[in-house]
Amino acid sequence: MRQQPAGAGSMGSPGAAAGWGLLDYKTEKWALIAKKGYQERDLDPQISVITKLKGVSVTRIKELENRLWDVADFVKPPQGENVFFLVTNFLVTPAQVQGRCPEHPSVPLANCWADEDCPEGETGTHSHGIKTGQCVVFNTTHNTCEIRSWCPVESGSAPTRPLLAQATNFTLFIKNTVTFSKFNFSKTNALDTWDATYFKHCRYDPHSNPYCPVFRIGDLVTAAGGDFNDLALLGGAVGISVNWDCDLDDGGSDCWPHYSFQLQERGYNFRTASHWWEASGVETRSLLKLYGIRFDILVTGQAGKFGLIPTAITVGTGAAWLGVVTFLCDLLLLYVDREAHFYWRTKYEEAKAPKTTSNPAWTKPNQL
Amino acid sequence: MRQQPAGAGSMGSPGAAAGWGLLDYKTEKWALIAKKGYQERDLDPQISVITKLKGVSVTRIKELENRLWDVADFVKPPQGENVFFLVTNFLVTPAQVQGRCPEHPSVPLANCWADEDCPEGETGTHSHGIKTGQCVVFNTTHNTCEIRSWCPVESGSAPTRPLLAQATNFTLFIKNTVTFSKFNFSKTNALDTWDATYFKHCRYDPHSNPYCPVFRIGDLVTAAGGDFNDLALLGGAVGISVNWDCDLDDGGSDCWPHYSFQLQERGYNFRTASHWWEASGVETRSLLKLYGIRFDILVTGQAGKFGLIPTAITVGTGAAWLGVVTFLCDLLLLYVDREAHFYWRTKYEEAKAPKTTSNPAWTKPNQL
Amino acid sequence: MRQQPAGAGSMGSPGAAAGWGLLDYKTEKWALIAKKGYQERDLDPQISVITKLKGVSVTRIKELENRLWDVADFVKPPQGENVFFLVTNFLVTPAQVQGRCPEHPSVPLANCWADEDCPEGETGTHSHGIKTGQCVVFNTTHNTCEIRSWCPVESGSAPTRPLLAQATNFTLFIKNTVTFSKFNFSKTNALDTWDATYFKHCRYDPHSNPYCPVFRIGDLVTAAGGDFNDLALLGGAVGISVNWDCDLDDGGSDCWPHYSFQLQERGYNFRTASHWWEASGVETRSLLKLYGIRFDILVTGQAGKFGLIPTAITVGTGAAWLGVVTFLCDLLLLYVDREAHFYWRTKYEEAKAPKTTSNPAWTKPNQL
Repeated sequence: MRQQPAGAGSMGSPGAAAGWGLLDYKTEKWALIAKKGYQERDLDPQISVITKLKGVSVTRIKELENRLWDVADFVKPPQGENVFFLVTNFLVTPAQVQGRCPEHPSVPLANCWADEDCPEGETGTHSHGIKTGQCVVFNTTHNTCEIRSWCPVESGSAPTRPLLAQATNFTLFIKNTVTFSKFNFSKTNALDTWDATYFKHCRYDPHSNPYCPVFRIGDLVTAAGGDFNDLALLGGAVGISVNWDCDLDDGGSDCWPHYSFQLQERGYNFRTASHWWEASGVETRSLLKLYGIRFDILVTGQAGKFGLIPTAITVGTGAAWLGVVTFLCDLLLLYVDREAHFYWRTKYEEAKAPKTTSNPAWTKPNQL
Repeated sequence: MRQQPAGAGSMGSPGAAAGWGLLDYKTEKWALIAKKGYQERDLDPQISVITKLKGVSVTRIKELENRLWDVADFVKPPQGENVFFLVTNFLVTPAQVQGRCPEHPSVPLANCWADEDCPEGETGTHSHGIKTGQCVVFNTTHNTCEIRSWCPVESGSAPTRPLLAQATNFTLFIKNTVTFSKFNFSKTNALDTWDATYFKHCRYDPHSNPYCPVFRIGDLVTAAGGDFNDLALLGGAVGISVNWDCDLDDGGSDCWPHYSFQLQERGYNFRTASHWWEASGVETRSLLKLYGIRFDILVTGQAGKFGLIPTAITVGTGAAWLGVVTFLCDLLLLYVDREAHFYWRTKYEEAKAPKTTSNPAWTKPNQL
Repeated sequence: MRQQPAGAGSMGSPGAAAGWGLLDYKTEKWALIAKKGYQERDLDPQISVITKLKGVSVTRIKELENRLWDVADFVKPPQGENVFFLVTNFLVTPAQVQGRCPEHPSVPLANCWADEDCPEGETGTHSHGIKTGQCVVFNTTHNTCEIRSWCPVESGSAPTRPLLAQATNFTLFIKNTVTFSKFNFSKTNALDTWDATYFKHCRYDPHSNPYCPVFRIGDLVTAAGGDFNDLALLGGAVGISVNWDCDLDDGGSDCWPHYSFQLQERGYNFRTASHWWEASGVETRSLLKLYGIRFDILVTGQAGKFGLIPTAITVGTGAAWLGVVTFLCDLLLLYVDREAHFYWRTKYEEAKAPKTTSNPAWTKPNQL
């Protein structure tokens, strides 16, 4: 059969042809203008983030009395990178030394009645040390296995209110630079100013202060959908997304970051220690179980600038879709329309190769 | 020439037409169903990882006697992020103070016969300090240049068996949450339970315990293709990949992570020190050269959910490929087939624009 | 209307047909060979980076006298990962203890004339502590509010010349392994050698020493477009990009990294402290405000190997574009050409379904 395919002109009326043409035009325009199909894009900027926390908080506990915590105490690690932990609560076991002492009753297999309950050398993954083989007094209500360990073992539990509750008023300064190397264009989210006090007083606001990336910690947690005091008690994790979508055809003025915040985890703590040697030559350490909020800054960005090749490709792709439109029209006419059989016969013409090749009568093919 | 293009109907037989149609149908079905072309996809989830190691190990060396290492000692850094280092072996130089002492013989240009071999102020990138200008005794067999440095200099080599060999029994808990913001869907890899002891006893198993992401360190290294004692001696790096592939049309039940492990490096060590001031006002430090295994957790994920637009695009793309099929059929008939010249004449009709435009005989085009 | 679409054969001359065919062939060849369209690609290698800095520097300041800094002192954090900070300048406040002392005059609202200027309990985000309610003498020229804080407060400013200027001669060793799991292929950027001294003497050069990834810090900063002494004074951030583009059809020999360097930030400092307890039971700390250069190593890579499916897809896509070419030819002939109306009539034949279905005269469609 020989096919006379339907096309835009075979829809049965010029109006329908115009309709299909208009649909394709609209799609093309959307791809070109709304989705910026005329632009070359850089989806992989180089990213640099520097953070700085500021603030002080006083804690009042038996082991440490009144103690002021400043940035060198409550930020781990201190280097000011895009991921950092802010201490909001803690449990301290100061001045531990290597020795023998009773295990904590909460540890599996720690409780005992007699020495036989404490096999020497035994330990478990939740143990603080290795059993010595003796059952000793832990307190007035518990006897536990003696262990070789850092002594005394960590005891007690975290306070019922976060010790560094004032951390809600701390401020976080996020300095972020993105570089789109494809266009040799770079932008920072902070105002480029010689005024050393500018950042000491401003707070971020997307309308009145978009060039001051200084955020109050309590506001950050609220924006992430959490409650600071809740999160501060047993810790958690908050994500900060910084997204840049830059149109460089505007000369770089249409290029500012958008900040969003997400609560990622509830509950987060870890243990750390400071070590030193006493005058007696004994190694000593102070053990801290720290609860707090980890902030995770993720920067993403893309930039676009007019390019001849992307424009050509978008136009070409739009044109290619017209082939699909053609095919759909065919389907409608040949299979759906009531007069489909008529169009089928009009469209297709059977072309059979002749059995003999010498008869000049075969120079014209059969007609339907 | 005017072309009558071949189509599915011009393959010479309805059977072949059905064949091509079936091929395109099969491809379309594969794109739509097997590759889930009907789904909207989120390829960029927000990811949060918290890790916690547990276990103790006793080391017995001359400088430190019997010393128990727990999690606050053997994990660097301690914050429980997705990258951490587990100490398995070490070399310690305790109580160093700033002063003058002999350089180590292994350092380039350290060995000497006389003071002239040691130019004052000279140093190299592998030196422990700056030369003072004197050649002094290092030990009974070596004389080396005296240097101003942290003294005494690091000496000796790492033990021939890993000091923290018991680390093979330590456990690693990986808490990982992925959030697909496109679908407002979040999932954690750990069982959501109030039972505080659940994770103290379970171990991960993909069939019996998929909700307990607690791994034994020795098993991790074995799964990565390494031998723990080998790797623990001079250190190394192991990658842990956590991959999520979620089908949200199942309501979130078909959404669990798959863990895989890769041995990335053999040999890994670094130096760190604790600093403090003695009562005498002298700054002192304890230098540790730590060998160990760095674990690098990389989480990737994607999720899909039924979407009208992706379905339409996949169907349309499948239809567009029919154009290619059409073209291939043309090629076969017009160039390959034995009767190609026949089909050529049937297909193409030469249309030449008339030289004069007034002859009404030209209202009908030439026919083949 | 019935359409006889134009095709390659309807351009009016075989020459033009050949022209379009050649264009499509050239494009196909570019996609296939120049852009390696015949290769399967792995764009997501597993990446492992280990870094090691070497060198020493002597600082001479009042608080610390002559002090030698080595790698355990000037690299933060010490683990040798892909991001690390090299100290080049600092301000030290040794032996701080918790107590009451005058606030620094540079802090907002610190200066005072009388006790009434210092409300007890007041603090600000830039304060070092909490006001006690008294106005005291800071120095001969200033009176400031007394605060409860780590005392004495940090005072003075960073030196006018970087204290660790010799850091320009330090060396950085970057060991980087990429694994393309799709092809089960792995490569390291460092020479695989048993010679323990090889890396002690070589320096990276892309032509003479491409297998020795040892870089001099000063050279790195210069390659990034910065001046070491400038950057060392108040700190900064330098990015190191390592890019792998491997053609595995060459058996792995055409697979070497390319290094590039970018200056990302000017100005970078953070505060950190060492804590210990004195014999008296008093917690003491040494506060350091560190200025330095953060190095951020980013590894990207892709590998390609011949694959049957990618080859088929590239060829097929090239063929599919011929449909676009067909459409463009149509446009030209039907709308642009002077004889367009003629081609229009030749191309399109109106097919109207008959009003009655019984007239056998209708077995043949109307002809134009």
